[in-house]
Amino acid sequence: MSHRNFKMIGYVVYGRGSFNQLDDIIKPHRKENAPMIFFVDHYFEGKDLPKRIQLRGNDKVIFVDVTDEPKTKYVDRLAAELKDEFGTVSGIIGIGGGSTMDLAKAVSLMMNNPGSSADYQGWDLVKFPGVYKVGIPTLSGTGAEVSRTTVLTGPTKKLGMNSDFTPFDQIVLDPEITANAPANQRFYTGMDCYIHCIESLTGTYLNEFSKSYGEKALELCREVFVTKDTWDAECDDKLMMASYAGGMSIAYSQVGVAHAVSYGLSYLLGTRHGIGNCIVFDKLEEYYPEGVKEFKYMVLKNGIDIPQNVCKGLTDEQFNRMIDVSLGMKPLWENALGKDWEKKIDREKLRELYEQL
Amino acid sequence: MSHRNFKMIGYVVYGRGSFNQLDDIIKPHRKENAPMIFFVDHYFEGKDLPKRIQLRGNDKVIFVDVTDEPKTKYVDRLAAELKDEFGTVSGIIGIGGGSTMDLAKAVSLMMNNPGSSADYQGWDLVKFPGVYKVGIPTLSGTGAEVSRTTVLTGPTKKLGMNSDFTPFDQIVLDPEITANAPANQRFYTGMDCYIHCIESLTGTYLNEFSKSYGEKALELCREVFVTKDTWDAECDDKLMMASYAGGMSIAYSQVGVAHAVSYGLSYLLGTRHGIGNCIVFDKLEEYYPEGVKEFKYMVLKNGIDIPQNVCKGLTDEQFNRMIDVSLGMKPLWENALGKDWEKKIDREKLRELYEQL
Repeated sequence: MSHRNFKMIGYVVYGRGSFNQLDDIIKPHRKENAPMIFFVDHYFEGKDLPKRIQLRGNDKVIFVDVTDEPKTKYVDRLAAELKDEFGTVSGIIGIGGGSTMDLAKAVSLMMNNPGSSADYQGWDLVKFPGVYKVGIPTLSGTGAEVSRTTVLTGPTKKLGMNSDFTPFDQIVLDPEITANAPANQRFYTGMDCYIHCIESLTGTYLNEFSKSYGEKALELCREVFVTKDTWDAECDDKLMMASYAGGMSIAYSQVGVAHAVSYGLSYLLGTRHGIGNCIVFDKLEEYYPEGVKEFKYMVLKNGIDIPQNVCKGLTDEQFNRMIDVSLGMKPLWENALGKDWEKKIDREKLRELYEQL
Repeated sequence: MSHRNFKMIGYVVYGRGSFNQLDDIIKPHRKENAPMIFFVDHYFEGKDLPKRIQLRGNDKVIFVDVTDEPKTKYVDRLAAELKDEFGTVSGIIGIGGGSTMDLAKAVSLMMNNPGSSADYQGWDLVKFPGVYKVGIPTLSGTGAEVSRTTVLTGPTKKLGMNSDFTPFDQIVLDPEITANAPANQRFYTGMDCYIHCIESLTGTYLNEFSKSYGEKALELCREVFVTKDTWDAECDDKLMMASYAGGMSIAYSQVGVAHAVSYGLSYLLGTRHGIGNCIVFDKLEEYYPEGVKEFKYMVLKNGIDIPQNVCKGLTDEQFNRMIDVSLGMKPLWENALGKDWEKKIDREKLRELYEQL
């Protein structure tokens, strides 16, 4: 058996107010006349956060549109525009949630790799290192800050650029900048971490490395969403570490039924990852009885709305497309149900599940 | 306030049997005619582990003498000999406990930096990156596999080469190769992690990053030394992760009284780090009541001998030297006792403590 050799991010700074150190941190990576490019989630347009970025020389802030999850053609366009305008850049800094960080990673890679990002959707296809890249999460839970992928929707598939060139050179974990996230969004994104941990810890893949990280992430999610009665600075601190630990736990684990089913949803309906996982997990008592019970309690306690009836009125053909996408996620099903997973889930059962969503 | 920007190790592979992947892992880092050098703890001379190393070309195994903790002159000699014999090397792989790993880190740096390693004892003095370096722990607990230092005894001080060039490019965490460690040594080294966690978690420095890692490390130590009744493979798995997590928790925390006092011991008497911490911690009820109580239980349960009366017969001058060394560790005392630590500990009180050891 061969164990994955896991590429780590280069540097991590964690602390309240560490966002203010950004200018110093990126300084040694500046190249003459090549700007630093700040991808900022469009949610922050007109808000305070972008004003705190220290722009130097021809640096540029680009508010990225993450209404939909990143598409390969958007990545290609951003990279082409930067090449046209600057030739090369010193680095790309992604400030936002998982989509913004994934965009930053993908565009960094496409500054130095020929063709389209769609050519690199898969495992270890990227040929050259990208430009210097920094991830700064403003929402906690995705784990994108430490992952070796960047989830992209391409012309033929939704799949990341998985490679050792993909992880960030630097991440800045400043819980202060997550403080004002909208409560619903914060919950959905936090649950990305919680659900991932339930799936991996109850799965058939797992070793002590991923277990340690997964258990810690789960514990921190519980402190935040179960134990605490009001949201405070400590919650931001802990959820940020939950996200980091949840992301690290991916090294030797795999997600399960919720992710496999929600990929179908997001492929067909464009449902975003965090909320999609919540919609699905809400109906998975059969597979994760304890986790779903706790999830429902957290939903109630935190006063969150989980959308219902999202599959109402879909055609047979649409259901079939979701089922095709979901059953294609073989490692997820195997992790959740074991090597003989195909005996335990079939199209009919999956159709029933989708109809409940 | 400025937060430390923490340099991570490059790659981690964790898993039973991952030691067998070493040849594949280091292959891309081989340079023509420049050998890979394997520093192996002399404890393994004649044993099986070194036979499992795949030597290629002019690769060389050097059994390093870690009877004493590494000295700068030993580092300098090893680097000089390698330069004489090979000119340059492709990489240095340290296989052993904390001392062996620290030697590997230090010699890697000295292959590319002029002068003596003693010139670089301190913070951020190292000028150039070292050669490729790999850490493979055969004992769990030191955290040396992830740290940015390498503790060295020099002509004038015991201090590491702390720098962003110091962390390993690669670590291989294979719990299988820790399986046959002698029980006393395994305990002392494991307690390095336990004591560090107690000191940092009860200290005045700390943030959620270090707290998360420290709590997890402590929990894993407890599972191994408190909960479990016999030592098995799971213990090796967990203690290896405890060591890793304990090491990571150092990023934003500091050790305390046990380390401050034991540095005096090891400076004067050459007491090794793990056992020195145990000798001291055993008498620290006043500072860490809960931790010391649990420690004593673990000592008893695991049938371990903690040396007593090690300071018997020392002269006043010798006591004073230990006290000088100990009081010089200001950040450790401040972390343990607060900003006004000098009001809480003085030479007399420290003398009393040393006399109890």
